[in-house]
Amino acid sequence: MNNFVFQNPTKIIFGQGTVSQLGKEAAAYGNKALLVYGGGSIKRTGLYDQVLAQLKEHNIEVFELPGVEPNPRLTTVHKGIDICRANGIGFILAVGGGSVIDAAKGIAAGVPYEGDVWDFYVRKAVAQSALPIGTVLTLSATGSEMNGGSVVTHWEENLKLAHLSIHTYPKFSILDPTLTFTVPADQTAYGSVDMMSHVFEQYFSHTADTPLQERLCESILRTVIENAPIAIAKPDDYAARANLMLCGTYALNGGMISVGVTNDWASHGIEHELSAIYDIPHGAGLSIVFPNWMKYVYRERIERFVQYAVRVWDVDPTGKTDDEIALAGIQATRDFFTRIGAPATLSEVGIGDDRLGEMAAKAVRYEPLGQFKKLTKEDVEQIYRMSL
Amino acid sequence: MNNFVFQNPTKIIFGQGTVSQLGKEAAAYGNKALLVYGGGSIKRTGLYDQVLAQLKEHNIEVFELPGVEPNPRLTTVHKGIDICRANGIGFILAVGGGSVIDAAKGIAAGVPYEGDVWDFYVRKAVAQSALPIGTVLTLSATGSEMNGGSVVTHWEENLKLAHLSIHTYPKFSILDPTLTFTVPADQTAYGSVDMMSHVFEQYFSHTADTPLQERLCESILRTVIENAPIAIAKPDDYAARANLMLCGTYALNGGMISVGVTNDWASHGIEHELSAIYDIPHGAGLSIVFPNWMKYVYRERIERFVQYAVRVWDVDPTGKTDDEIALAGIQATRDFFTRIGAPATLSEVGIGDDRLGEMAAKAVRYEPLGQFKKLTKEDVEQIYRMSL
Repeated sequence: MNNFVFQNPTKIIFGQGTVSQLGKEAAAYGNKALLVYGGGSIKRTGLYDQVLAQLKEHNIEVFELPGVEPNPRLTTVHKGIDICRANGIGFILAVGGGSVIDAAKGIAAGVPYEGDVWDFYVRKAVAQSALPIGTVLTLSATGSEMNGGSVVTHWEENLKLAHLSIHTYPKFSILDPTLTFTVPADQTAYGSVDMMSHVFEQYFSHTADTPLQERLCESILRTVIENAPIAIAKPDDYAARANLMLCGTYALNGGMISVGVTNDWASHGIEHELSAIYDIPHGAGLSIVFPNWMKYVYRERIERFVQYAVRVWDVDPTGKTDDEIALAGIQATRDFFTRIGAPATLSEVGIGDDRLGEMAAKAVRYEPLGQFKKLTKEDVEQIYRMSL
Repeated sequence: MNNFVFQNPTKIIFGQGTVSQLGKEAAAYGNKALLVYGGGSIKRTGLYDQVLAQLKEHNIEVFELPGVEPNPRLTTVHKGIDICRANGIGFILAVGGGSVIDAAKGIAAGVPYEGDVWDFYVRKAVAQSALPIGTVLTLSATGSEMNGGSVVTHWEENLKLAHLSIHTYPKFSILDPTLTFTVPADQTAYGSVDMMSHVFEQYFSHTADTPLQERLCESILRTVIENAPIAIAKPDDYAARANLMLCGTYALNGGMISVGVTNDWASHGIEHELSAIYDIPHGAGLSIVFPNWMKYVYRERIERFVQYAVRVWDVDPTGKTDDEIALAGIQATRDFFTRIGAPATLSEVGIGDDRLGEMAAKAVRYEPLGQFKKLTKEDVEQIYRMSL
């Protein structure tokens, strides 16, 4: 186990009906809020009206930034920063999924910063402060509701980059599983792939002597595998939605499940290049890429992949070689993603082989990509080719 | 899953050599600290000198409260409060195990309170604030380093009571596994029983639809079961000590592993009456009581005990009745406690049957005890009798 520092101050308010606590929580952060949301589904479901009523009841003046994209764009973040500065807004309320929350984090960190907030994403500067953020989650996937990470896309430059900061942990997040009843099957599947992928990035590691962390990871994986198909078949199954929501949050809440473990994050880097150019859903990209990454790297520490196959997928090891067991676990992953309706190949989402080299070069822009196996441009291009 | 609120702001600084970060962390909370510690083992190991050097280097004036008892007493807490008030001390540093940290929490909550701090423990008042607390942990057991709970004993009245508050979460806790290398075998065993017992209190529940929480609990239990015997056999095994330390912290860190789950806590109540009168180590008392509580209540939800036996102890269910499987898991628990050197009967720790009725009456003073099965005075007395 490596030495580590862990702190996660976010307050989670979880369960049916908890939006009724929004106004009281928000009121602790001043009387002006920027309400950040996406494409308008919160208006169709009535959540928008509920949120406004809560804020009004607590005398909070509301400014709005609607239209945050599924891969949130820097231009949108800039727009939010401008609104906050022009109106002296001191609190950001994100109502939506990970993209909306990530945009809110960009805005929150950007307002008090003199330069361009993009500096944080290209590693030119480190955020020293941020406006307080609250969230109402409507999609189980990214864990952004309980961590300090955000991913923003610079569309003109086809760059999709991440920023982590202790200052952008939400002060509070309201997690009501019933708000995810209306999430369609494909997005439920992509969200499930996303949370499993977050666990994979923390689980496939060379760090020794981490039995508890490994089991915490396996616990989340098994629970997602059980509950995602139920939520897809029966969208208003409260238990399945609640279990998925908790899994999504715990899968990436500041590293609680992988304290002292060297993480990988190569597959996320590989995927980000895809959605930075082709604007595909993040979870769909991960579904395509991750099993191929697994096949490409599993011999780096085959015993971890054997453990994964046996403990997560109940692969019977009797009479099998380690290679066979590991590959059976990887195949089970692919089959599961297919079973819940997530894509397996780039061609399924309309991506050909014409820009693979360009994407591979960008994926390794800062350094070899990942930790489990440090990937070169050639490695990344090979994983793209396996994904065609 | 029940609705829940979860927040745990404690900053954990984990790993070998992390005491070197103490001064910097402490300096954020002013220039006067009350150093709280126990029987002097920190002087023998050199930790005391290290701590003083850290505080001195950051110009923090140190006042001392040594001699905190293994079951910390209200008189000691009062003494600490007096020292803080007389000297305008604004920060409490606990260096020790759970007892020392619990005493520090009592002091921290008591200083700003006008009445007697005991009011919080007898539920006459609720803490509205507390001085900031930092800890350096020297014993893996209670989880007090990352939660807001404290247990204090009113020796003259033979009362051992708990107080929970969001205000008494430590601001930071330094967890260096090498500081536990000198913990003797018996205390390592009692600490392991204590952390397992904390998990039991959260795991044996009637709350439905909590698959992730159950697996998180099982993950900790299996990891303690693997690592406690190693740490006892080889006290300076870093991996085993680190794994135990992380298990102890995660087992009771504000309920992270049991969010939305109704907890029980009857066995702790039953044990507290024992150590309030006989001053036995808490973990030793739990080792005696818990398997008997299990035997007494397992039919309330036998399937949870079956799951426990199969998943935690690898009991082979083939050809067995549910009763046989559940009892095999309970017996495995008892055998494990015995194997690591923890007691199985009250007579082993010199306790007879003369005050069982008195203790049972006190255990149910506020209400029927526990949630999994709500225990009456007669139930509690029966569990004491099974423990003779």
